[in-house]
Amino acid sequence: MAVTAQQQESAATRQAAGGNDVSTVDATVFKAVCDMAQRAREAQHRLAAADAAHKNALLLAIADALDHRADEIAGANELDMQAAFDAGMDAGKLDRLKFDVTRVAAAAQGVRNVASLADPVGEIVRGYTLENGVKLQQVRVPFGVVGMIYEARPNVTVDVASLCIKSGNAAMLRGGHAAERTNAATLAIIGDVLESFGYDRGLVATVDQYGRAGATALMEARGFVDVLVPRGGAGLIQSVVRNSRVPVIETGAGNVHIYVDATANLDDAVRIVINAKTQRIGVCNAAEKLLVHRDVAATFLPMVASALSQADVVLHVDPVSRALIEAGGIEGVQLVDATVADWDTEYLSLDMGVLVVDSVDDAIAHINRHSTGHTESIISEDYRSIDAFTSRIDSAVVMVNASTRFTDGGVFGFGAELGISTQKMHARGPMGLSEMTTTKWIGYGMGQVRA
Amino acid sequence: MAVTAQQQESAATRQAAGGNDVSTVDATVFKAVCDMAQRAREAQHRLAAADAAHKNALLLAIADALDHRADEIAGANELDMQAAFDAGMDAGKLDRLKFDVTRVAAAAQGVRNVASLADPVGEIVRGYTLENGVKLQQVRVPFGVVGMIYEARPNVTVDVASLCIKSGNAAMLRGGHAAERTNAATLAIIGDVLESFGYDRGLVATVDQYGRAGATALMEARGFVDVLVPRGGAGLIQSVVRNSRVPVIETGAGNVHIYVDATANLDDAVRIVINAKTQRIGVCNAAEKLLVHRDVAATFLPMVASALSQADVVLHVDPVSRALIEAGGIEGVQLVDATVADWDTEYLSLDMGVLVVDSVDDAIAHINRHSTGHTESIISEDYRSIDAFTSRIDSAVVMVNASTRFTDGGVFGFGAELGISTQKMHARGPMGLSEMTTTKWIGYGMGQVRA
Repeated sequence: MAVTAQQQESAATRQAAGGNDVSTVDATVFKAVCDMAQRAREAQHRLAAADAAHKNALLLAIADALDHRADEIAGANELDMQAAFDAGMDAGKLDRLKFDVTRVAAAAQGVRNVASLADPVGEIVRGYTLENGVKLQQVRVPFGVVGMIYEARPNVTVDVASLCIKSGNAAMLRGGHAAERTNAATLAIIGDVLESFGYDRGLVATVDQYGRAGATALMEARGFVDVLVPRGGAGLIQSVVRNSRVPVIETGAGNVHIYVDATANLDDAVRIVINAKTQRIGVCNAAEKLLVHRDVAATFLPMVASALSQADVVLHVDPVSRALIEAGGIEGVQLVDATVADWDTEYLSLDMGVLVVDSVDDAIAHINRHSTGHTESIISEDYRSIDAFTSRIDSAVVMVNASTRFTDGGVFGFGAELGISTQKMHARGPMGLSEMTTTKWIGYGMGQVRA
Repeated sequence: MAVTAQQQESAATRQAAGGNDVSTVDATVFKAVCDMAQRAREAQHRLAAADAAHKNALLLAIADALDHRADEIAGANELDMQAAFDAGMDAGKLDRLKFDVTRVAAAAQGVRNVASLADPVGEIVRGYTLENGVKLQQVRVPFGVVGMIYEARPNVTVDVASLCIKSGNAAMLRGGHAAERTNAATLAIIGDVLESFGYDRGLVATVDQYGRAGATALMEARGFVDVLVPRGGAGLIQSVVRNSRVPVIETGAGNVHIYVDATANLDDAVRIVINAKTQRIGVCNAAEKLLVHRDVAATFLPMVASALSQADVVLHVDPVSRALIEAGGIEGVQLVDATVADWDTEYLSLDMGVLVVDSVDDAIAHINRHSTGHTESIISEDYRSIDAFTSRIDSAVVMVNASTRFTDGGVFGFGAELGISTQKMHARGPMGLSEMTTTKWIGYGMGQVRA
């Protein structure tokens, strides 16, 4: 699909009119990015028709090249790390930026893993013969050009490039500024392998050279970029969601709830809450809120507060929870009063909101009002409570008597994960290779016309 | 999912910053529309859990009420028709605006047809047991709140309301200004039936009372409206696609191609071209362009030009086509020279662009460059040409030796059609009830936690 002149004109018109509020597009950069996307799409046409054996050979060659030339990447990464350190980057971000030879080797191994996955392209999703004899089939095909805007995590560059290649897509990348040298070194190696296989290296392209203007151009390039997937913190994702003219798959934010029902097995409930809250705290499937049915609250809250306090979790409590926990007389529990804002907050830290509710209906209403729609879990032995919760909770994943930490492409058996979609269009929940494709209908006839 | 305060604030911030270029949102209307959407979502929660028998009973009651109270709708429609006539509306649009008792009866029959279709909600799309024993299933569920912006065609109101109800969704409608009285009368009847079934009438709501500001608010209401589907002309659709912050499914525009290969059965080719171009001219699956392999052009072009001229089709020809058609010495053929703009134009009239190409590769390249990605057809007996065309054409539907007019939800067996998607996210090609749903993952465990 191409509406080139038309769309460039419309972007120019928007710019002339003052652009939109957040992201006024630079016309020169926009033109350059659209040209890159066209070039990527042309290169993608051959990849789209390639069989899995060819794509796997390409991926294995990339993995080998990353291993052989890991020093180049690690060297570039040292410069990025030094510059980031000098600029005062915090330890957590510096760790995510780090891409030494060990991590490059792990990333190369990840590419081999992607090579080993089943090819989603060519799958016949539906197929049947129409009354008129036309044989119809709906076939899975690549999107075309996938855009990705992410933070300074160089392993994402390798990850996304390999997922795009396996699913037959071209990639247009905008990584974090702090990782630019590392990403450039990585893409130089991938580009060399692409060329050795006869592809234009623009098949996996970066717009890093245009800085923020490149990201803005990617978001404006509707018709040139088929889908845009932001990966990173809530700020980055919301900025892309709000400003993109290209269809976006929203990923990530998880204000995740666990509801402990009146009939819950309380030992299971404690184990699941501890696992979901503390096994890894900075991830989107970590639990952030605990709702407890009032019938078990007096028994359960002291149990779980004790366990959570041993893991240094600070509890943001409503008055009823506070009274019941204090009545339990647990040592060392850290309680703060929950504010209205708490119920909408994804902490990503050793904090957890705690609320006593009157019924499963109240729990469902609270969750549907405050959740980001990622994952919620019910702990219950009651058939009707479980049915109400699984039927009426409006989130991507609903767990029953299991940890929220299971919402993950790897755990779901996808082999690899592009992110976890919290929107309802196209993909919802963990996204694997299938979610990086669209479909095409093919109808085989023998001269049929419409009556 | 609700990010109410946050999103209202972000819209207010945007507005304070000058809003976006095209659609500055009115804060009062925006608040009102978001409140309506919240009300619609609350009503939808019960509908989402309803079984098909209940939804079908509701639909049949709506159909009966439309029949019984058709006079009310027809009366309102007469006022709309008179006002539109006085304002100088053209005959074609007046015809689409007309909703007399006969047409209301046909619309009521359409509702009964929707009631007879299979319920997409609850379908288990995938299901398997994880290594840890969690039983996982991906279940089809309604979107929630579906927004629709369409032109002054009152039958669409009935159509969309019934499709939304059957798929468990609430509807937020903005119909064309000229049909406001008709739509209000229709929605009053639907609302009465909803109330008699215990639903809030806001389950099927209109924002018509806010005029254009209502449409703008719908487009801004991300998080309140789950998906927006514009239906109508290219201008309307492009405006929504460009300005919406809510995820949009783009429908409609069809710059549709037929490619006649060197090996084509030329009699079939003539029949298919005539059917695709002339059976109905104002529809998105009508053929607009004819590409002919040079090896058969001298034979085929005079044949097809003769047949097309008998149907009063004006041919927009490249120089080679002109020479070959003129050499054929056909009487009464209307030829004009094609301009560059012709190749990107959806005529929706008795016009057709004609181009001679050197190969199937050239045809594919031309189509992928100029098509809107709706439907293309190849007429060929050659295995490799057909494979190249079906594999490499990047459109929603590819036909082989069949008319492009088959791209239709009814023909595809969907029973009803919300539109034909020309984008790649979520739905591509005709959209039926399944395409009005998303999915939810449910995992049934027995206390599992992540290691």
